[in-house]
Amino acid sequence: MAVCVALIQGASRGLGLEFCKHILKNKPPASVIATCRNPDGAAELRALAAEHPARLTRSVRLRRGFGGSGGLDLIVNSSAILHPSGRGETSLRDVTAQGLSSTLTTNTVGPLLMAKHFAPLLQKGGGGFGQQPAETVKQHSGIIVNITAKVGSIGDNGLGGWYSYRMSKAALNMATRNLSIELGRTRPRVVCVCLHPGTVNTDLSRPYHKNVPKDRLFSTQHSVNCLMNIIDTLNIEKTGKAYSWDGSELPW
Amino acid sequence: MAVCVALIQGASRGLGLEFCKHILKNKPPASVIATCRNPDGAAELRALAAEHPARLTRSVRLRRGFGGSGGLDLIVNSSAILHPSGRGETSLRDVTAQGLSSTLTTNTVGPLLMAKHFAPLLQKGGGGFGQQPAETVKQHSGIIVNITAKVGSIGDNGLGGWYSYRMSKAALNMATRNLSIELGRTRPRVVCVCLHPGTVNTDLSRPYHKNVPKDRLFSTQHSVNCLMNIIDTLNIEKTGKAYSWDGSELPW
Repeated sequence: MAVCVALIQGASRGLGLEFCKHILKNKPPASVIATCRNPDGAAELRALAAEHPARLTRSVRLRRGFGGSGGLDLIVNSSAILHPSGRGETSLRDVTAQGLSSTLTTNTVGPLLMAKHFAPLLQKGGGGFGQQPAETVKQHSGIIVNITAKVGSIGDNGLGGWYSYRMSKAALNMATRNLSIELGRTRPRVVCVCLHPGTVNTDLSRPYHKNVPKDRLFSTQHSVNCLMNIIDTLNIEKTGKAYSWDGSELPW
Repeated sequence: MAVCVALIQGASRGLGLEFCKHILKNKPPASVIATCRNPDGAAELRALAAEHPARLTRSVRLRRGFGGSGGLDLIVNSSAILHPSGRGETSLRDVTAQGLSSTLTTNTVGPLLMAKHFAPLLQKGGGGFGQQPAETVKQHSGIIVNITAKVGSIGDNGLGGWYSYRMSKAALNMATRNLSIELGRTRPRVVCVCLHPGTVNTDLSRPYHKNVPKDRLFSTQHSVNCLMNIIDTLNIEKTGKAYSWDGSELPW
């Protein structure tokens, strides 16, 4: 059987880096392909690659080498920005075309283009992540996880603000729903979900940490543990939805 | 009392043009400010302005002249594209960064920037549209209507496709929800809603008319009649939601 392969996008730090560590530690012999804008600048990722030379690669030559099959079992799209300024808009006054556009490009267009270009490889995957049902016709070959956020839920939005970020995640939720339909319709099936990691101690949320109750500010380890527990239970019946770190379904 | 003023964005044709006609015909003495990219090229709009020289203007000099108050009672953001190619994506194969980005700019960023720049004028409006409750504290000064689409509902999405358009409308729904919170919190209050016009006989939907049952392909007149019936009943209790042409609430 081919070795299981996960592609982690946005792997230089935060949740993406933690997904790499988690899979290397807990899912042997799975390999990890770690992508980020500047792999040479990502010291922690470089150290991790040195530690796992046979299992972690930072170059994206997907068509050769990985597990022999050329397929992918999991993609996690984790890179995101709150806003190019580092601060979400507190009111309309802060909304700019440029801020909206950059945030949408990184958080929404990026993950969808990843899906476009890597869907054929996920369709060639071995279904090494998630929970395969006994019925062959319902089995999946791969999984796409888009990291969303609870503040991207329109129905749950009671506070307002953070225009660009909220809008980018609502649009990402729609993209994921569309992907789940297109890639779930026929075999080989790809499961597509959005996962909300909680409020995690990363650079993205750093300016707001003082407002978060201590027990609700998750370490990346804790958040990724929770998210991998969800990923471990995914199958085609659960595709096209958004789940929170505790497994509960998020409203759109 | 100051004369009621409506600003219609995207007024050269389709729903926007029809909103201008409807208000001029059915809401005297309300004035209409009609905006579009190329007012001189918009023959029907030019003819309408010649017919109603005192009530319709195609120039956007909002700070002077209109009703004396400088305020606005209603904005309808109606301009939208399905995709720069004129055809929604049928599959991931058709998804491009450029297509996503243009569609988001026109359908999502545009209406939000309209809201940003005109919110102060809506806060100075006389509340001439919608239904004012007796309680002064609940009265609104203006209304923002963003034209959304049922296919922009994530929960309702069972077919997939049309990535750019669906995502742009989901993000617009989020923007509208955010606006309703920010502009509904304190007085003067602005009501902000999304309205789904049905499938309307316009250039946007033209390539798909053959697939639409005859009684579901609305004329612009019929659609705008339905939408104005909804606008006539709007108040602060109904803000922050998406309504279909028949008044039913759309899921996010």
